[in-house]
Amino acid sequence: MARLVMKFGGTSVGSVDRMKNVAAKVKREVEAGNQVAVVVSAMSGETNRLVDLCKQVDPVHDQREYDTVVAAGEQVTTGLVAMALQSAGVKARSWQGWQVPIRTNDMHGRARIAEIDGAAMLRDMAAGVVPVVAGFQGVGPGDRIATLGRGGSDTSAVALAAALQADRCDIYTDVDGVYTADPRIVKKARKLDKITYEEMLELASLGAKVLQTRSVEMAMNHRVRTQVLSSFADVAGTLVVDEEEIVEKQIVSGVTYSADEAKVTLIGVADRPGIAAGIFGPLSDAGINVDMIVQNISEDGKKTDMTFTMGRSDLDRAVGILEKQEKNLGWVKLVPDRNVVKVSVVGVGMRSHAGVAHIMFKALAEKNINIQAITTSEIKVSVLISADYTELAVRALHTAFGLDAE
Amino acid sequence: MARLVMKFGGTSVGSVDRMKNVAAKVKREVEAGNQVAVVVSAMSGETNRLVDLCKQVDPVHDQREYDTVVAAGEQVTTGLVAMALQSAGVKARSWQGWQVPIRTNDMHGRARIAEIDGAAMLRDMAAGVVPVVAGFQGVGPGDRIATLGRGGSDTSAVALAAALQADRCDIYTDVDGVYTADPRIVKKARKLDKITYEEMLELASLGAKVLQTRSVEMAMNHRVRTQVLSSFADVAGTLVVDEEEIVEKQIVSGVTYSADEAKVTLIGVADRPGIAAGIFGPLSDAGINVDMIVQNISEDGKKTDMTFTMGRSDLDRAVGILEKQEKNLGWVKLVPDRNVVKVSVVGVGMRSHAGVAHIMFKALAEKNINIQAITTSEIKVSVLISADYTELAVRALHTAFGLDAE
Repeated sequence: MARLVMKFGGTSVGSVDRMKNVAAKVKREVEAGNQVAVVVSAMSGETNRLVDLCKQVDPVHDQREYDTVVAAGEQVTTGLVAMALQSAGVKARSWQGWQVPIRTNDMHGRARIAEIDGAAMLRDMAAGVVPVVAGFQGVGPGDRIATLGRGGSDTSAVALAAALQADRCDIYTDVDGVYTADPRIVKKARKLDKITYEEMLELASLGAKVLQTRSVEMAMNHRVRTQVLSSFADVAGTLVVDEEEIVEKQIVSGVTYSADEAKVTLIGVADRPGIAAGIFGPLSDAGINVDMIVQNISEDGKKTDMTFTMGRSDLDRAVGILEKQEKNLGWVKLVPDRNVVKVSVVGVGMRSHAGVAHIMFKALAEKNINIQAITTSEIKVSVLISADYTELAVRALHTAFGLDAE
Repeated sequence: MARLVMKFGGTSVGSVDRMKNVAAKVKREVEAGNQVAVVVSAMSGETNRLVDLCKQVDPVHDQREYDTVVAAGEQVTTGLVAMALQSAGVKARSWQGWQVPIRTNDMHGRARIAEIDGAAMLRDMAAGVVPVVAGFQGVGPGDRIATLGRGGSDTSAVALAAALQADRCDIYTDVDGVYTADPRIVKKARKLDKITYEEMLELASLGAKVLQTRSVEMAMNHRVRTQVLSSFADVAGTLVVDEEEIVEKQIVSGVTYSADEAKVTLIGVADRPGIAAGIFGPLSDAGINVDMIVQNISEDGKKTDMTFTMGRSDLDRAVGILEKQEKNLGWVKLVPDRNVVKVSVVGVGMRSHAGVAHIMFKALAEKNINIQAITTSEIKVSVLISADYTELAVRALHTAFGLDAE
């Protein structure tokens, strides 16, 4: 007997028939002797509909009221899925965030879970009653409804699994696992049986949309074995686990890319002390995260070119802020560029294996792809390239690191 | 300064523009120096959508889960209307049933309000913050979400007005008040400025759809001055008040009709003791309310005809139950009839005025309308007639009792 949390996303509960499919999957686990808690998202499209209503009423609305409105989406699903389970002969009841309670802080719209009291649910589970818990929501100070922000249902599921000391958290979604690369781009991409928390965290941060970053952090911090698998296909997914569980470590486990990048180059900036602070201070004050930075020192040592990247949605704001500093910084030319992509290779094996960057640069050079900037961590190497070469670069790296399926 | 509860139904909050209209109405009362609490229904169509989803999942669903699903409709409206008020410069916050709390019993799907704790709301109102309260819902035993049944938002509003000791409860709807008859049938119908609780209760029970019966009972029991008025027209509505507030009492205040009736005649039943119990006992056991009863004694005293009425939706079930009793009761013929209507005149003035029934029968006789059954109370006379004559009868009675506008 195991204790499981099963989480179903918006497409998995997108219609009455799909909810019945969810009930069948849960029933199978219950009949196998497992204690199960279910976490559900809003039906697909519902959250967008509710967010649109809020925007129509007032584009700059009270986040507490926004939370009240959008949390209704998950509430509906909990009741319907509980009914579907009962209809399939499985005892079940719905739980809203305030009923559990799932206590959060007061950052409405992107609240963080502070505490989950799983006692009542554990009693139900021991009595064979499946709790169907609203994902994405909790209850903040003053008993106000709070939501965790987009994708928060994954975080709810992992946090609940931690609180219930579950043996595993299964995240059912519309893909059947984590791949070595996006299968739409790389035909030879392979599904991974296992991946470490650290790798999954890098992949999530670097643009892979399988799991929400915060849910992976949560899984890593509480060592929750988390499986990503398909609601629609009946096959094992990818297990996100502790590094120790993975016997044969690949140097690189996956190749990913993020198109959500933009680049600014300041040509001919005076090369004097404090210039970097003059550029990055105002950006930081405006809440703009700068990711990669490259500085080319000019030959005479008096002028320099600065290149740096940020999220694409921040570009216009960043340019506006920099233009206000033009006198102060005194550049010759400011060149914004949206046509860039960040391609990354990720793997815990890198820690014990030199030469990953070398293999990466060589593979890209062979395809005549110019590297505009580089950033690394202990388990990843990322490069910025022209967006024109996205697919070519991902495929070349997938081959170069021996990831192609046979 | 007065303390007001303003309730807005589904059509009044049916779109974002209409919610802005609601905010404007509330703002005007606040700016006039009043303390205001708002009660809202789900956006029109939303409750039906949610009920349909429940039926699709399982036609015989758990009522507690049904309540969880459908209560989400009001939750969405509270958040949106609170935003609309804030956007109009009025401080506001949403309240769900469990937040207030509005405690109910455990009759999920048609729960009754047991207690409302208005303390926190009163503090808000004193500080100029308008509570926007979800109608139709409360919280039952075990902190489960409970709903009051269809039309329950009127009851929520009146109960809240009682708890807050409000000076008035304004029910904004899509008609602008209570009329002496349905204006779609009687062109000369007049809007009543005032009507007594007792009259309103009879009218609500007898088919007038302006206010839900339970809300009128609640208003009467707690002496809540209740006004019915239009969300769309800017005119005074009808005030439902204590009899003492009405100086000049009409004999008849209104003429109404209910098409939701059906009739059964049992021809040639043996006229012996216990026969009525044999007919009405099984119907009562099945939860079928019999309304009017007429018995014609035959000349020889051995056979009798029994005619009785019930809600139209109960007719098929009633016939089924009676047919099982055929041997026992031994009638010659069972005649079901859906083509009947109950027409009623209502007025507290009847108490001190004889001859109302006489005027009624005479007016109908003059139009050659046959009366099939009669029932009376202290302040109403109802007759059952062929549905073919509905409009003719209502108009004739409206004229006969001097209600026509000049």
